[in-house]
Amino acid sequence: MTDKTHVAFLGPVASYSHQATRLAFPDEAVNELIPVKTIREVFDTVQAGTTEYGVVPFENSTHGPVSMTLDALADRQDDLPDIVVCGEVYLGVHHYLLGFGHLGNVKRAFSHPQAFGQTTKWFKRHLPGVETVEVSSTSRAAEMASEDKTGESAAVAGLMAGERYGLEVLGSKIEDREDNTTRFFVIRRKGDDGEGQERKKGDGGEGGPKGKNLVSFSVGSHDEPGALADVLGCFKQRGLNLTSINSVPGLREGMRPFEYLFFVEFEGKEDEEGVSGVLGDLREKTRGWRYLGGWEKGRR
Amino acid sequence: MTDKTHVAFLGPVASYSHQATRLAFPDEAVNELIPVKTIREVFDTVQAGTTEYGVVPFENSTHGPVSMTLDALADRQDDLPDIVVCGEVYLGVHHYLLGFGHLGNVKRAFSHPQAFGQTTKWFKRHLPGVETVEVSSTSRAAEMASEDKTGESAAVAGLMAGERYGLEVLGSKIEDREDNTTRFFVIRRKGDDGEGQERKKGDGGEGGPKGKNLVSFSVGSHDEPGALADVLGCFKQRGLNLTSINSVPGLREGMRPFEYLFFVEFEGKEDEEGVSGVLGDLREKTRGWRYLGGWEKGRR
Repeated sequence: MTDKTHVAFLGPVASYSHQATRLAFPDEAVNELIPVKTIREVFDTVQAGTTEYGVVPFENSTHGPVSMTLDALADRQDDLPDIVVCGEVYLGVHHYLLGFGHLGNVKRAFSHPQAFGQTTKWFKRHLPGVETVEVSSTSRAAEMASEDKTGESAAVAGLMAGERYGLEVLGSKIEDREDNTTRFFVIRRKGDDGEGQERKKGDGGEGGPKGKNLVSFSVGSHDEPGALADVLGCFKQRGLNLTSINSVPGLREGMRPFEYLFFVEFEGKEDEEGVSGVLGDLREKTRGWRYLGGWEKGRR
Repeated sequence: MTDKTHVAFLGPVASYSHQATRLAFPDEAVNELIPVKTIREVFDTVQAGTTEYGVVPFENSTHGPVSMTLDALADRQDDLPDIVVCGEVYLGVHHYLLGFGHLGNVKRAFSHPQAFGQTTKWFKRHLPGVETVEVSSTSRAAEMASEDKTGESAAVAGLMAGERYGLEVLGSKIEDREDNTTRFFVIRRKGDDGEGQERKKGDGGEGGPKGKNLVSFSVGSHDEPGALADVLGCFKQRGLNLTSINSVPGLREGMRPFEYLFFVEFEGKEDEEGVSGVLGDLREKTRGWRYLGGWEKGRR
């Protein structure tokens, strides 16, 4: 390892995650970007302190939340206790069909399930009935397509991956919606300054005034009607604006079927009274909660 | 078609959906259960009036919401305008590894992505590194496994599917959690009694007192902080208990990236004042909403 700042991302090189990571950490002189194999590995690497930062896809505007990232943030086995979100990056995502020769020869397409989910209309129109094979990343898909020189295999991936593996463009900007955007989170280890589980007042470095905040909590939704509305009401009473809600099955020990873990994003106010206050409220109204970090709003 | 009541479900015969449909429509003398190929087709069949009812999986306690069902309920192309939910069924789901011979010979496993998502621990322990092939249903997986007599192919599916295709049990109850449960919705066409978009007071047949209700609506979440909390506050003010929130990317014409469509379930009160009232509130506070039906709470 060098003495640069190390940033793990979902590889391989040339993936969309790589592009997002370059946006968040543009200076090659001081940052070393390290591809790893899975989203979970990005989290593990940061938790272990092997890299200072990690970049993970959180949600796509067409396909919705990225379940592997939500699962890691849920931390059901309590083995990612120090992970906090400290930034966000928006990346416009354009997909290309990449291969050799021409479209009429393509018999199978490789890609990540998210990318197939964002290009269903194009496939229905241009390649109905083609075999679609789900692989771990769009970049890996490009690599696999490049290994079949017959022109029968293609990949849905970004231009950067196509260039890397010497593929031709068989279809350009094939995403269902041209405003297709993926939002990434920058994660890091909770500092030694006590920030994280208990957010300190005025801790501007971790989101600060007008920043976004992310908190997770569990309430029994089906079995305890009203519990969820009660919790969400806390944010309103403290003058905090909810900007996003996501959920995954709780599945932690002691949780029952259909008990969900919620991820709530909210915007803080000028001062941090509201944020500290709502974290206190959550202690009373939920079965468990965790402050997952604060950051400055990203540009879209 | 017979003069029986026709009920479409996600086939093939012997699927978990089939089991759930038999629970909801147990009387073979009056009901004809009709397998179709996709969740979307269940919706289309009911919308077209080809069948009076349909049964679709909505959420699994381990793997979360079923995105194909949420997508259909989102009705982004406005071609399912008359669909309402009129019932729910809970089915305990036990997965089996089904094949020929013994576990040590298995080189690949077929199943639906949801079933793989519910059996990851077992696979990690007993079949690490085995190839997993995603197919359209667990029942189809069983059929495919039955076609390979070498014993190298297996399926994750239910006992009913294993019996139908003459497979042996290589692993029993391999689900990650033994309380693994799937919740299904019963759907039908909106009646000619004016019920649906505008819920009538005292319309007991559509959920009625103490019933559950489902409504969908869209608000700009990222861009209009507070809008979501405002809407959810309406339910509380009317004395209605939220029991569940789900969301999908909006993606309707005119919607922007990260604008979500929310599905909110809530429980009505003794009288229906609250339900009528909240639907009026939604008209003012959302960009669009739809009443998706009411039903009696199912037994778990």
